[in-house]
Amino acid sequence: MPIIEPKILKGFRDFGPKEQPLRQKMFVVIQSVFERFGFLPLSTPALEYKEILMGKYGEDEKLVYQFTDNGGREVALRYDLTVPLARYVALNQNQLVFPFKRYQIAPVWRADNPQKGRFREFYQCDVDVVGTTSPLADAEVMACLCKAIEELGIRNYELRINDRNEMQFESVETLRALDKLDKLGADSVLKLLAEKKVPQSDVEKIRPLLLGGNFAVPSGVANLMALISGQGVAEKNIKYAPSIARGLDYYTGTVFEIVLKDRPEFGSIVGGGRYDNLADQFSKKSLPAVGGSIGIDRLFEAAQSLSLIRANGGIRVLVLNLSERYSADYLSMVTQLRNAGIDSEVYLETAKLGKQLKYAESKGARFAALWGEKEKAQGAIEVKNLATREQESVPFTDLVEFLKTRLKDEKK
Amino acid sequence: MPIIEPKILKGFRDFGPKEQPLRQKMFVVIQSVFERFGFLPLSTPALEYKEILMGKYGEDEKLVYQFTDNGGREVALRYDLTVPLARYVALNQNQLVFPFKRYQIAPVWRADNPQKGRFREFYQCDVDVVGTTSPLADAEVMACLCKAIEELGIRNYELRINDRNEMQFESVETLRALDKLDKLGADSVLKLLAEKKVPQSDVEKIRPLLLGGNFAVPSGVANLMALISGQGVAEKNIKYAPSIARGLDYYTGTVFEIVLKDRPEFGSIVGGGRYDNLADQFSKKSLPAVGGSIGIDRLFEAAQSLSLIRANGGIRVLVLNLSERYSADYLSMVTQLRNAGIDSEVYLETAKLGKQLKYAESKGARFAALWGEKEKAQGAIEVKNLATREQESVPFTDLVEFLKTRLKDEKK
Repeated sequence: MPIIEPKILKGFRDFGPKEQPLRQKMFVVIQSVFERFGFLPLSTPALEYKEILMGKYGEDEKLVYQFTDNGGREVALRYDLTVPLARYVALNQNQLVFPFKRYQIAPVWRADNPQKGRFREFYQCDVDVVGTTSPLADAEVMACLCKAIEELGIRNYELRINDRNEMQFESVETLRALDKLDKLGADSVLKLLAEKKVPQSDVEKIRPLLLGGNFAVPSGVANLMALISGQGVAEKNIKYAPSIARGLDYYTGTVFEIVLKDRPEFGSIVGGGRYDNLADQFSKKSLPAVGGSIGIDRLFEAAQSLSLIRANGGIRVLVLNLSERYSADYLSMVTQLRNAGIDSEVYLETAKLGKQLKYAESKGARFAALWGEKEKAQGAIEVKNLATREQESVPFTDLVEFLKTRLKDEKK
Repeated sequence: MPIIEPKILKGFRDFGPKEQPLRQKMFVVIQSVFERFGFLPLSTPALEYKEILMGKYGEDEKLVYQFTDNGGREVALRYDLTVPLARYVALNQNQLVFPFKRYQIAPVWRADNPQKGRFREFYQCDVDVVGTTSPLADAEVMACLCKAIEELGIRNYELRINDRNEMQFESVETLRALDKLDKLGADSVLKLLAEKKVPQSDVEKIRPLLLGGNFAVPSGVANLMALISGQGVAEKNIKYAPSIARGLDYYTGTVFEIVLKDRPEFGSIVGGGRYDNLADQFSKKSLPAVGGSIGIDRLFEAAQSLSLIRANGGIRVLVLNLSERYSADYLSMVTQLRNAGIDSEVYLETAKLGKQLKYAESKGARFAALWGEKEKAQGAIEVKNLATREQESVPFTDLVEFLKTRLKDEKK
């Protein structure tokens, strides 16, 4: 049989047992904060009718993965979680009670040019409120995202808020150029404005922003800031930022992003805003909405580089396998440990001890339990602390209590 | 702007806030059992090179979603979690320590004909051990899956084990027909064997199985049964079943399935077996493996119909919104509740109380907190138990302690 090269697609990733526990822990933390704020989970399919996704992403529409399925239907992989939400809400508007608050943590796909930190498959963690124009909703979304970031161990961040209605431009290109200010700098933005031939009135409006400085906070934004700090977000972490625009053309009011002050190079790790027109394509009923999204990949990198959170990955105890004769004993040991909620396993073959200990290490085990002829004769298990290399002799019947105590001593 | 009908693809599903919390709870329970048995998480992409998936699924290969991407690559959506595992292990075999034990809980896609209980997108929950032929591995996989089922509240199940090597057939069609015994009955299987023109020797071998009855348990299967019950699975739940074959041609030894004795109509909710050749297409090194998969959709239906587990879905407290003047108070209340770990929210608009209470009900809230002019004057919040309709007056500063106690009284 010819060998097929076991390769993976560019821009796609495997997350193995070293990374995936940390990623899952991040999801769990984020999810629990979302639920604490009253957002409930929604799951939508990976595939949608192509026409559902078209006309929503401007020039990025070419990045949508699309194809014709076996039944001749034009389908597409979801590009974000927002358009599927709009489709879901429009489809179920007669059953849903509004305001409708949901979160969704799921992968999306974009046929983008892969580069550092940009992938073709990546996760989004979204919260949205649909069905109200109340600024309380805008504030809740932002406060919730700040709290999620804080719960992941990040304290030194900045929530930057702007209101698109505060500054109207003649050309949409002005907004797009302005959005690149952080990345490109003022000179390049001015050049871009010239290239795109935007009206001079736009350039004049934008010039003070390019020069930086402090701006009077508009009353609408000041109100939002108060409603956010009223939810326990430190005032020093909230800033009016008249230059942020967020790329997507569909935002209609509030726009915001969160950046890590220690790691500006990661760019915005959270972004969002108000989009009161999104469901207009699916429904005659107006469905105003506000939402935001955590970019888990940048955050994952940041978390690793800042050593923010630790995943409880790996097992606690490996029961060593010295002989098939003791299989029943090994299974009894491991079963008692598992019944006590201790992640543990028996080595599945009778291999050399060195190999088994190397395996224990690869699984992150804290303890190894050894039970052979000598131990059986004495009725005591040899328990090895794999970090300190210390070894203790523990009566067979005391194993679970002994390890429970020892594991409690460590901080998990 | 013309309205686009917000429809969803046939065979695909949304899971809204009523169903998704239960599904997520099931995933969490299953995942924690998998980890207790020493399986660690792996995440692989939704898309693979088409050639990775081809040649693995026999006549079902036509069900693989496949297309040409923007870069001209032939790609396919994963059809199961086993072939991506084989690809991952072959690709990383020099870094991995064997036996390699991983779990993966993720959606797969099949362009199947949608019917009751069969979908085009559904989740699989897989555990596999790669790199050992030890029967301890087979037993561990089966024990682990039984314990996951038990942890979901199911006690009355049957683990059915067979060994493909115990009965060899001339024609692969014999195995395929035998596999349909439970579904079609003995007569139809005999008819199928005749249609497929399988050798008479196969028919004779198979005849006793079709007639049912008790069969002597082969020693290999008896050994597995002992190793499984040694891990705390009740002996009465483990059965030798010489007629089960499991459809997939790639199984090479042990095959097994779990059925619900109270609900045989759900078919097998768990299936798996040993497949010692799977990675042969990707690697010259032999990578024997054994694994199994929980069909979460059937189990989800079964769990609902058996009322097995309850999801802790919904919020605990809704803070009613009587006037914009009290926004700061409402946010203070809700923030204190959230800081105490109580899922809660403030109603985002000042609407009629009836509408707000209907919203509270739709979110599964247990309590509503009311704070208006009268309450502010008295310094006490009116707290309404939404189940009993009882109302109590609670000093503003005591709200969190009061609700903590009341919520502890309920069983979560």
